[in-house]
Amino acid sequence: MTEILPSYLQGSWWSPAADAEATEVRDASTGEIVARVSTEGIDLSAALAYARTAGQASLGELTFHQRAVRLKQLALALTERKAELYEISSRTGATTQDSWVDIDGGIGVLFAYSSKGRRELPNAKVYVDGAVENLSRDGSFLGRHIYTRLPGVAVQINAFNFPVWGSLEKFAPAFLAGVPTVVKPATPTGYLAEAMVRIMVESGLLPEGSLQLVSGSIPGIFDELRLGDLVAFTGSASTAEGLRAHDAVQTGGVRFTSETDSINASILGTDAVAGTPEFDAYVKQLVAEMTSKAGQKCTAIRRAIVPAGTVDDVIGAVRARLSERIVLGDPRAEGVTMGPLASTAQRDEVLRQVARLQDGGGELVIGSTDAPDVRHGDGSQGPSPDGAFLAPMLLRFSDPQSAAVNEIEAFGPVSSIVGYRTLDEASALVARGGGSLVTSVATHDPEVAVALATGMAAYNGRVLFLDRDDARSSTGHGSPLPNLVHGGPGRAGGGEELGGIRAVLHHMQRTAVQGSPAMLTALTGVWHQGTVARPYQESGGVHPFRKSLAELRIGDQVVSGSRTVTLEDIETFAAFTGDTFYAHMDEASAAANPFFPGRVAHGYLLVSWAAGLFVDPAPGPVLANSGLENLRFLTPVSPGDEIRVELTAKQITPRETDEYGEVRWDAVLKNQSDEIVATYDVLTLVAKEQAAAA
Amino acid sequence: MTEILPSYLQGSWWSPAADAEATEVRDASTGEIVARVSTEGIDLSAALAYARTAGQASLGELTFHQRAVRLKQLALALTERKAELYEISSRTGATTQDSWVDIDGGIGVLFAYSSKGRRELPNAKVYVDGAVENLSRDGSFLGRHIYTRLPGVAVQINAFNFPVWGSLEKFAPAFLAGVPTVVKPATPTGYLAEAMVRIMVESGLLPEGSLQLVSGSIPGIFDELRLGDLVAFTGSASTAEGLRAHDAVQTGGVRFTSETDSINASILGTDAVAGTPEFDAYVKQLVAEMTSKAGQKCTAIRRAIVPAGTVDDVIGAVRARLSERIVLGDPRAEGVTMGPLASTAQRDEVLRQVARLQDGGGELVIGSTDAPDVRHGDGSQGPSPDGAFLAPMLLRFSDPQSAAVNEIEAFGPVSSIVGYRTLDEASALVARGGGSLVTSVATHDPEVAVALATGMAAYNGRVLFLDRDDARSSTGHGSPLPNLVHGGPGRAGGGEELGGIRAVLHHMQRTAVQGSPAMLTALTGVWHQGTVARPYQESGGVHPFRKSLAELRIGDQVVSGSRTVTLEDIETFAAFTGDTFYAHMDEASAAANPFFPGRVAHGYLLVSWAAGLFVDPAPGPVLANSGLENLRFLTPVSPGDEIRVELTAKQITPRETDEYGEVRWDAVLKNQSDEIVATYDVLTLVAKEQAAAA
Repeated sequence: MTEILPSYLQGSWWSPAADAEATEVRDASTGEIVARVSTEGIDLSAALAYARTAGQASLGELTFHQRAVRLKQLALALTERKAELYEISSRTGATTQDSWVDIDGGIGVLFAYSSKGRRELPNAKVYVDGAVENLSRDGSFLGRHIYTRLPGVAVQINAFNFPVWGSLEKFAPAFLAGVPTVVKPATPTGYLAEAMVRIMVESGLLPEGSLQLVSGSIPGIFDELRLGDLVAFTGSASTAEGLRAHDAVQTGGVRFTSETDSINASILGTDAVAGTPEFDAYVKQLVAEMTSKAGQKCTAIRRAIVPAGTVDDVIGAVRARLSERIVLGDPRAEGVTMGPLASTAQRDEVLRQVARLQDGGGELVIGSTDAPDVRHGDGSQGPSPDGAFLAPMLLRFSDPQSAAVNEIEAFGPVSSIVGYRTLDEASALVARGGGSLVTSVATHDPEVAVALATGMAAYNGRVLFLDRDDARSSTGHGSPLPNLVHGGPGRAGGGEELGGIRAVLHHMQRTAVQGSPAMLTALTGVWHQGTVARPYQESGGVHPFRKSLAELRIGDQVVSGSRTVTLEDIETFAAFTGDTFYAHMDEASAAANPFFPGRVAHGYLLVSWAAGLFVDPAPGPVLANSGLENLRFLTPVSPGDEIRVELTAKQITPRETDEYGEVRWDAVLKNQSDEIVATYDVLTLVAKEQAAAA
Repeated sequence: MTEILPSYLQGSWWSPAADAEATEVRDASTGEIVARVSTEGIDLSAALAYARTAGQASLGELTFHQRAVRLKQLALALTERKAELYEISSRTGATTQDSWVDIDGGIGVLFAYSSKGRRELPNAKVYVDGAVENLSRDGSFLGRHIYTRLPGVAVQINAFNFPVWGSLEKFAPAFLAGVPTVVKPATPTGYLAEAMVRIMVESGLLPEGSLQLVSGSIPGIFDELRLGDLVAFTGSASTAEGLRAHDAVQTGGVRFTSETDSINASILGTDAVAGTPEFDAYVKQLVAEMTSKAGQKCTAIRRAIVPAGTVDDVIGAVRARLSERIVLGDPRAEGVTMGPLASTAQRDEVLRQVARLQDGGGELVIGSTDAPDVRHGDGSQGPSPDGAFLAPMLLRFSDPQSAAVNEIEAFGPVSSIVGYRTLDEASALVARGGGSLVTSVATHDPEVAVALATGMAAYNGRVLFLDRDDARSSTGHGSPLPNLVHGGPGRAGGGEELGGIRAVLHHMQRTAVQGSPAMLTALTGVWHQGTVARPYQESGGVHPFRKSLAELRIGDQVVSGSRTVTLEDIETFAAFTGDTFYAHMDEASAAANPFFPGRVAHGYLLVSWAAGLFVDPAPGPVLANSGLENLRFLTPVSPGDEIRVELTAKQITPRETDEYGEVRWDAVLKNQSDEIVATYDVLTLVAKEQAAAA
């Protein structure tokens, strides 16, 4: 008998007793038994406790950047052994292209989060959100928002359609946030997720307790959850409803995010008539969404919403493209472009929903509910009594407002088409879906795009605009991307996943912190104005530019001498740069300007001089000025004014995989009356060690 | 008989029939009837429909800045008539200081949102979130996140304690987002909210349908709500639980945010022993939180968590300060510093909870549950049979882990005190509250602060650090501020209000949009790289610096000529600025640097020259260079290299109340090989009209 699929719990592999009651899982094309699944006797409570202790502790030792580096290493470990995953994936009914989306797509999420984590998060454990808020007249009491990680465990409940991608797209942001994961794949394809977790475990890269796997059901787990834990669910709206209703979520403070299948729409713009590139792109995309993964995608197009006069054109073009392009069969057979559904149970469920769509007014204009002939693994063509095959189907509804077309989902290769008369009606139809993951629009007319976005963006988590300019490069209606939010309001579950760092923050708590500048500096690791700094001259120390990252501390400061600006300086600078703007060159016009008392120094002159005032020129750890941010000119500088600069080390970000890192310096330019002339941040690259600076 | 308090619905005042069944509301100090409240016969469905049509339409015509200006005008209208509100407020039991928090505090929220709306939001209707995401190799397919307003109505259900502030802190962000409000104040103090709404209505400043008032209960309203609507609730955790359970929220996609009373804590740091400024500040704050608003604040301190050895010191100091400072009585009497609870029903409820606290191990060490003698309106002292008075009470728990102290709230002038032994224990006790709005910490030791923040920040919406440096300027444990988030996880309701623009965004839907650069430009109103621009030379037009805001369009562009950088230029610039950094001056050291081929031009030289290349110097609509953002140096420039600049109008932000506005320009510096040398945004102030530029 096939062995029961193991779970990975508390740092080791665990299986139920061999005689446990188990669910049989079958190959989608052939019906052969692939795996048996059971969690009989599992100790979920211990697994959660292990995550909250060992997992929190091990992840808590790492900074965002260190976790990000680990994600890349995990991605490389999976890449090295991905052939194993592709082979297993074909048993789920996935074509090579489908598997690419799942496996390479999933690995791609790890790479993306690794990269974004290092570029967009500090090399620290706390994330600072937004600007400092001054809460007092004298600057002694400040406010700021910080994110700290949730103190519990992320329970990730996944759908059957993308066992690799679905697991990794939830794992990556949780891991980066520092929250340990317990992942529960869907039973029909859990054997592929198990293979993936096995590779990750065998890589030796996982911090203790950071990832556990439950292969099979998780009865009663919600009773074990509490404030600080998070559940991320992908699956049907009805299952989400049942889980969300649990007391742990309703009153216990457990975060619950869900991403559920929705009745996504694709709108053909009024300008995109047959013969336009947008019409062709629309049809191509619709066929792709009907057939890829046999239509088993939460994001697939369920409603084609097209100008009433183009319904027949679209149907004709879809029919033609389906017959040219689509070969249904066992994914292991040569030339097959569309596989079976994940299981015969899934196939039967889809047929039930198609019948409901027909009862609700849908006319089947492409495809059939009959069992199709398919290409078998040996290349032969014929019926498949044990495979979960269905032909692509398109239903036409004469009434676009019918409840069936807007509310019933057949989670397979099934779409419906309706006609609209006005753009407002098209938007209203999108809204009738009750909230969607994605709507796409094919139009080359910006006015059409703006009108539709205004009318229906708020009903969607994502809106894709397809036209001749992006048709080739578009990633497609159905593809969630790691850098864009995935999720949607209402029926789509009301949650958000991905979206780059946004998903990391969903695993953290935002807290407003109030205190003195010194206290906020301590809490955030970022120097705040008002904190006592250490001017190097006073402390008898060395110039901060002479310090490596290992030596530099936030608060290290240069207080420069003063320099007087003369009219001659302004004229010299104007002549040298060619910047003869009237505010610098023409006394009468400058004085007539609402902001200037007369001719004033160039802003660029001031920041250039400031550099001259604060720089320590000899070779040393400071490698380069890489940029400048948030420069504001606050007080004009007239001939005769003196300027000086205070430059303070504000934030230090060593790079994990380089011999240097970033230092952000707080720069304040003042005049002889202590008025603030300009404020900005100077960005530099600085060597980690003195030796590296040679 | 006292008239029934009217509601403001569908643009006019409405009252139930005179013989409707109504609730009597009484003066908190005297027991006299102040108002009768009823919604018998109200048509809530029509009110909601009116908000969704008229309210959405009128607010949809305004930009963020236009709505922000309106908020300021409303704040001024309320300020002008605030004496009326203060007079009414004293009937609720509020002292002048309590009324200041409610009335001036509420008006202050309008001012704050007006200011933040104009400084931090675009003068547009769509908010762009985060950076552009390049989704294709050739830049033809981009992603971005936008927020658009929710298409429904914001139903705001408020608590009785702050009828003005509570209404305005929810109204301001909804209004700024463009979402119409239906406000439902709590019955015991609804007459004050009614007076406030009346002033707002009479100001004539409210766009049609943007604000409606329901004075009284709203039975069945959740049955009328749907996707696109939002409910913001403040009140008890149990009421929130009941509302949240409704299908409209659970499956209908209605957003529900709640802010509920929580068992907030205040920690005395291990360093803050008696005699330190932190000890004194801690005691002062604790007494303020026990007595202000008679302790009827969601944010009040319910648990004083102090080092075990200092419990007696704290009790003694609190007792002394209470007897020195607190005069209980009718707020209209001279010298009174603490008023009654809002109603005798509230008083009785508090006494019930105090009894539960005592049953759970609490020893009443300060105050008494007996009816206190109070100062009456006529200045006499004595018992008050009809007033809702209670003396401040402090309970001591010997077991800090007891369920009672961590879970039971007496919503009045009641706190408890417990001792802790380690900082980890103190954090764990905070967590035992199950999620709080706020925790404060008195410490002058940054290590204590960091340890406590790490241990318990994630259980709080806000954490305040009190020490000698901010004790005078601190806004206090119990004060939510418009610029900081107000709300908290778990028991605190799980929601977020305020936090500046964050609360505006809670009234909007975030949507990822994907498309060509031109399409994203059209959708966001912000020019995106890759969109065809209009170089003025090619189109035969005028230089963009010669255009007023009325004439300038995003995409207007300057493509400059080239200029060659020589070694002499670098030396000239170094001599002029004093910036003799080795990368510019020392060939061998520069070449040894990992980023440079040899001596390179100063970054500041490049941006200064760029200004010379793109500027049109004669007087005109461009008034000033106000700043620069996001400068990154990407390719070093060596002697002999040529640079040129492309400057494109990226975003145009006219100011509503000035004769000028901001123009953000996209600047790209390239070299002779078309490599990008630097990218940044130039910020300028530009006159709205040519005439104003004279």
